[in-house]
Amino acid sequence: MDEVKIIEIKKSIFADNGQDADALRAELKRKGVYLLNLMSSPGSGKTTTLIQVINRIKDRIRVAVMEADIDSDVDAVKIREATGIDSIQLHTGGMCHLDAEMTRQGLDNLPDGKYDLVVLENVGNLVCPAEFDTGAVRNAMILSVPEGDDKPLKYPLMFSVCDVVVVNKIDVLPYFDFNLEKCAEYVRMRNPKALLIPICAKTGEGVDALADWLLAEVKSWKENK
Amino acid sequence: MDEVKIIEIKKSIFADNGQDADALRAELKRKGVYLLNLMSSPGSGKTTTLIQVINRIKDRIRVAVMEADIDSDVDAVKIREATGIDSIQLHTGGMCHLDAEMTRQGLDNLPDGKYDLVVLENVGNLVCPAEFDTGAVRNAMILSVPEGDDKPLKYPLMFSVCDVVVVNKIDVLPYFDFNLEKCAEYVRMRNPKALLIPICAKTGEGVDALADWLLAEVKSWKENK
Repeated sequence: MDEVKIIEIKKSIFADNGQDADALRAELKRKGVYLLNLMSSPGSGKTTTLIQVINRIKDRIRVAVMEADIDSDVDAVKIREATGIDSIQLHTGGMCHLDAEMTRQGLDNLPDGKYDLVVLENVGNLVCPAEFDTGAVRNAMILSVPEGDDKPLKYPLMFSVCDVVVVNKIDVLPYFDFNLEKCAEYVRMRNPKALLIPICAKTGEGVDALADWLLAEVKSWKENK
Repeated sequence: MDEVKIIEIKKSIFADNGQDADALRAELKRKGVYLLNLMSSPGSGKTTTLIQVINRIKDRIRVAVMEADIDSDVDAVKIREATGIDSIQLHTGGMCHLDAEMTRQGLDNLPDGKYDLVVLENVGNLVCPAEFDTGAVRNAMILSVPEGDDKPLKYPLMFSVCDVVVVNKIDVLPYFDFNLEKCAEYVRMRNPKALLIPICAKTGEGVDALADWLLAEVKSWKENK
C-alpha cells in the first residue's frame, strides 16, 4: 500500500473566515460532498469512533478522511488500515485549529467527484477549533466519560457550535463519576438542539445510531442540491 | 465563607512574552514565591490532583491556587472547599492560554508575602498553553490513562516544555490500552529529563511522590535566593 499522503497546511491569508467558510460550503453543496467537522479533547476516541462508523457506512456511501494533527501520521495510517478508505494527514505545524481556508487546502488533495462524505478530524482541543467555521455542513464533537460530565460548563463555545455530542467510552461509566443525565442537561444549556449519542467505540455499542444519523445527513445534503 | 474571587483576564499588550516571563520569574525569586504552571487536556484530573497534593503540603508551606478557565468558577470553589486554602478564579474570556502578563494579572490579586507556592491551573488544552512561558519556575502536566499513551507523539511541544509528566488515573489501567513503559519512552523522546510520576488522584496512590518533589522544589527555590 502507498504511503499516507501528508499535507503541510499553511497559515491562512484571508481575513474573513466566515465568508470563506460559506463559500466552501456552497461549493461542496454544488459538488454533492458532505463535510463533517469532528472535534474533541486529545484522547477522547475520535479515530476509534471514526473507524467504527466508517466500517458501517463505507459500502453505502463513498468516504474519505482528513486527519489534522500538529505532528505524526499515526491516525491517517490507522484509519486506512482499519477501514481501507482513503485518508490523508494534514499537518498544522503547531497551529491549534483549522479554519475554512486550511480545510480547503486539505480538500484540494482529494480528487473531485470521488466522495460523498469527507470527515475532517480536527486537532484535539476543546477551545480553539470551536472558534473557526471550517466550512463543514455539521460540527460534531466527542466527549469521553473519563473527561467528566462538567465539560459543557467549562468549554461553552465548543458545546454551543456542535450539532451532535457523542459521549464515548460508556463502557467505563461504572469506574468514573459521570452522570449521563446531568451531562445531557449541561449540553442542553449550551445548545438545546444538540443531539446526544452515547457510544462505546471500543465495543461498537451505540455506534449504529451515529452511523444512521450520518447516512441520513449525507442523503439529505445530496438530495436537496 | 466569602465568594471566590473571579478575575476577568485582559489580553496582553506586551510584545515580548519571553522577556516578560523572565522579569516575572526574577520578581518571584526576589519575593521567594514559587510558581508552578500545571497544564493538561480537559478532564485529565488537574483539580483533583491539586487537592490531593495541597492537603499533603499545606501544613508545611503556604499555598494558593489560581484556576484559569474560559468560564465558570467550579474549580476555584472546589479547591477551597476541599483544602481550605486561598484560591482565585481567572476567566480568560475565551482565550485558550495564559501568557506571563496574564499570569501577572492573576498574581496581582494575591497579597504579597503570604504564599510560598502559587499553582496556576492553566486552561485545559494540550496545544496553546505550551507555546507561552507564564513566568513559572516549572511546567508540569497531567496525562490521564484514558487519553492514551501516544499523546507525546501528537502534542510534541507540550511534552518538551514540561519538567514533570504526571500520569493520572492509573486505577483504570486494566480497562484501557495504555502501556506505561511505552508512554515513558515517548515522553523521553520529547524531553529526556522529564520526571514521570504515575498517580491515581482519586485514591491518592502515588501522590506522595508528587508532593515530595514539589516540597523539595519550593525549598530549593526559596533557599537559593
